[in-house]
Amino acid sequence: MSKEITSREQDYSQWYNDLVLKGDLADYSAVRGCMVIKPYGFALWENMRDVLDRMFKDTGHQNAYFPLFVPKSLFEAEEKNAEGFAKECAVVTHYRLKNDPSQPGKLMVDPEAKLEEELVVRPTSEAIIWNTYKGWIQSYRDLPILVNQWANVVRWEMRTRLFLRTAEFLWQEGHTAHASKEEAIEETRKMLDVYADFVENWMAVPVIKGVKSPNERFAGAEDTYCIEALMQDGKALQAGTSHFLGQNFAKAFDVKFSDKENKLDYVWATSWGVSTRLIGALVMAHSDDDGLILPPKIAPIQVVIVPIYKGDEQKALIDVKAHELVKKLKGLGISVKYDNSDNSRPGWKFAEYEMKGIPVRMAIGARDMQNNVVEVARRDTKEKQTVSMDGIEFYVQTLLEEIQLHIYNKAKTYRDEHITKADDWNTFVNLLDTKGGFISAHWDGTAETEEQIKEQTKATIRCIPLDAKEEAGKCILTGKPSSVRVLFARAY
Amino acid sequence: MSKEITSREQDYSQWYNDLVLKGDLADYSAVRGCMVIKPYGFALWENMRDVLDRMFKDTGHQNAYFPLFVPKSLFEAEEKNAEGFAKECAVVTHYRLKNDPSQPGKLMVDPEAKLEEELVVRPTSEAIIWNTYKGWIQSYRDLPILVNQWANVVRWEMRTRLFLRTAEFLWQEGHTAHASKEEAIEETRKMLDVYADFVENWMAVPVIKGVKSPNERFAGAEDTYCIEALMQDGKALQAGTSHFLGQNFAKAFDVKFSDKENKLDYVWATSWGVSTRLIGALVMAHSDDDGLILPPKIAPIQVVIVPIYKGDEQKALIDVKAHELVKKLKGLGISVKYDNSDNSRPGWKFAEYEMKGIPVRMAIGARDMQNNVVEVARRDTKEKQTVSMDGIEFYVQTLLEEIQLHIYNKAKTYRDEHITKADDWNTFVNLLDTKGGFISAHWDGTAETEEQIKEQTKATIRCIPLDAKEEAGKCILTGKPSSVRVLFARAY
Ligand SMILES: [Zn+2]
Ligand SMILES: [Zn+2]
Repeated sequence: MSKEITSREQDYSQWYNDLVLKGDLADYSAVRGCMVIKPYGFALWENMRDVLDRMFKDTGHQNAYFPLFVPKSLFEAEEKNAEGFAKECAVVTHYRLKNDPSQPGKLMVDPEAKLEEELVVRPTSEAIIWNTYKGWIQSYRDLPILVNQWANVVRWEMRTRLFLRTAEFLWQEGHTAHASKEEAIEETRKMLDVYADFVENWMAVPVIKGVKSPNERFAGAEDTYCIEALMQDGKALQAGTSHFLGQNFAKAFDVKFSDKENKLDYVWATSWGVSTRLIGALVMAHSDDDGLILPPKIAPIQVVIVPIYKGDEQKALIDVKAHELVKKLKGLGISVKYDNSDNSRPGWKFAEYEMKGIPVRMAIGARDMQNNVVEVARRDTKEKQTVSMDGIEFYVQTLLEEIQLHIYNKAKTYRDEHITKADDWNTFVNLLDTKGGFISAHWDGTAETEEQIKEQTKATIRCIPLDAKEEAGKCILTGKPSSVRVLFARAY
Repeated sequence: MSKEITSREQDYSQWYNDLVLKGDLADYSAVRGCMVIKPYGFALWENMRDVLDRMFKDTGHQNAYFPLFVPKSLFEAEEKNAEGFAKECAVVTHYRLKNDPSQPGKLMVDPEAKLEEELVVRPTSEAIIWNTYKGWIQSYRDLPILVNQWANVVRWEMRTRLFLRTAEFLWQEGHTAHASKEEAIEETRKMLDVYADFVENWMAVPVIKGVKSPNERFAGAEDTYCIEALMQDGKALQAGTSHFLGQNFAKAFDVKFSDKENKLDYVWATSWGVSTRLIGALVMAHSDDDGLILPPKIAPIQVVIVPIYKGDEQKALIDVKAHELVKKLKGLGISVKYDNSDNSRPGWKFAEYEMKGIPVRMAIGARDMQNNVVEVARRDTKEKQTVSMDGIEFYVQTLLEEIQLHIYNKAKTYRDEHITKADDWNTFVNLLDTKGGFISAHWDGTAETEEQIKEQTKATIRCIPLDAKEEAGKCILTGKPSSVRVLFARAY
């Protein structure tokens, strides 16, 4: 094979990087911590974005666009939010370059073009948006505001990983404004459900819905809801968050509305987001040592057809048949690529499309033509079948649905097998070091205990599951009383 | 009427701002020169983007995403490009804020978090992209690369206007790499045709295709092709540009490929872009003193239905009929809004939807119900007709097509009437000051003359039209010989 991948067992982290780079999803760039999303990776993101965008619009949201820059004075207005992001902000201080007199052909920052007020490159947009909402909201008639934005944001991370943690990333951020606390909480939960629906039913990644402990909350939120997924190395990954922001931003930016009784009150807020990080989750949840495995419902190419021929005459015959096949598949809305290029052999093509995770591969040879059959291989299980050409498009359609289901079920079985109860410290630590996954354990509810556990084990509280049942127990670390189990894990 | 608009005659520039703000397209922001694109304006941009994106894909392009930041050393590599943009660059110099010890609750730039190399916020992405292409291109087999990116860019303009000239704006930038000069020029011209097709057939704005004089070329290009439109005040607006970049960026970033004979050569490049500036062009090309006029093919809402009733009983009856109507229109792919909200009267709604440029308004009253008719008003001509409910959806479908055509023809007639030949200096100056529009005149081909004309009249050479015929003449300023007329205009 032309492109060697490190196996998961050998080096899980290198395996992941190999997949992203050799699967043509992304590339490193000349900018520290920033990546280039390559056409194949971007086509995947477009599919994900388009599905999510439809879901947002179906739940009444509209898109808008707010400035990339946040003036420092606005950025610092909501104190907790500012404190949470201050340490990782890219800051614009000047608005001009000039010729460097000491180095011909080189440029330097023009010291005379210093901004009076520094501009923060948005790490998140609550500040700039709530400053804008102030001008849009006077009365309850102006509410709710249900706005989403697709944008790039920058967080100056020290240790970066392709897709999982990059200095710049693409995301969507919903920012809604409401007349009541209840309505805002309902919105927060509704969008969590939208995220769970998307990640499970489109990305085929099972998630646990929960609420964050105060320590893990979004800076400036009253409550952070999240969906948590499990990767094949037993580490958790936060796949999306939805925040109930209370009246914090309304107070910071003085956004009040008059209600039906003409009484003034601060506006209630939510924000929610998912990012290109989801692509990292997708890669790690399903792929194997031969390459990517992509769920058919969001794969940029669902079916690839490879001709196997000797000489131009055979090729011409297969071309005709293949074009018929392409037309039939497209007629069912299936995205298909016919690769009859001459510059690589079938074996090389097979490996390449395996690497790229294309769900179904069809091969047509001269003898297949005679027998009116085609070889169909599925990427997830690698099973091959010889199938009659008659009605093949319906066979493929059903197969794509089966693959979608199969990879979801596989991930779900793995995830379910990796939620383990622990009732004493040794078991807890042992599970983390051996089996991994989510550890369901009691916690005394204090930030101190949470921090101690993190320091000693690198495990964090991923969430308190929304469906957690009341259960009397003792904290795994301190032995103090607890009424509900929470999920711990090491996480990305 | 609730929202007053300044008339074009009174103050054209204020008229434009009124439309953008009161038509709910955009809002000012707290960031100097940056605007907020409001949901209605963004829905318009989404429609424009989606059509263009389809056109790019149909011509073989794929989307990708490159970093927002360009390290200074890359930015300065192509000298002319760097020189052209250096004076308007936002520059990131630090990556952290910290608490300001002298002002509790305030933040300051952390002087210890100074970047070793400054990062320019992309004003355009040739540098970062060609630095990336170096890693992607070895042989002719890797060519062509046909990539587009939808992104935000920043150019620190001193005088800004909503949509027309903002410090941050949204755009798409195509960046292609080719094995031959001919192929690159063909791509440059092809994308110019795509832009002209889009602006004329979707935005209903007629354009002139041409090539820029050397003075007006994109910094770093060998040739800049453009489409030029005419606004209602007689000023021209550059609606899109497509650049043949020669081997300039390949040389600056050392990007070579081996051809079929294994000979090494530098790669040939193009880039092309349109931006949210197009929305400014759209507003100024068609609208009137009552508000926006949007072409049906890209209008966020094509039809609005307003019920006229007294009491809940009448309303309920009209609601039923209106919902039927909505369903029929949607069945034909027409986007429609039924506004039966109680908090404003029909007259207010009429004015509001007129302001927002919704192409067709339908009103249904109690008597209309009895007569099985509906009142249909078109936004462009303000004509009203009473039309039978039977088959009304087909009537509306045809009407939308007629409106699209009509506003194009109107703009085209105006534009055609405002291309005037001038053969002496006095006529030239006089035309600019009175009639405006494009002045077709001879020019001696020198940059000096072009600059003198600009200084004396504020008119620039908009383009040398692609269909310009050879014609012996004398330069309008210097009297020196010229072989072709060029188009002058004052421009946005
Ligand atoms: Zn199965
Ligand atoms: Zn007409």
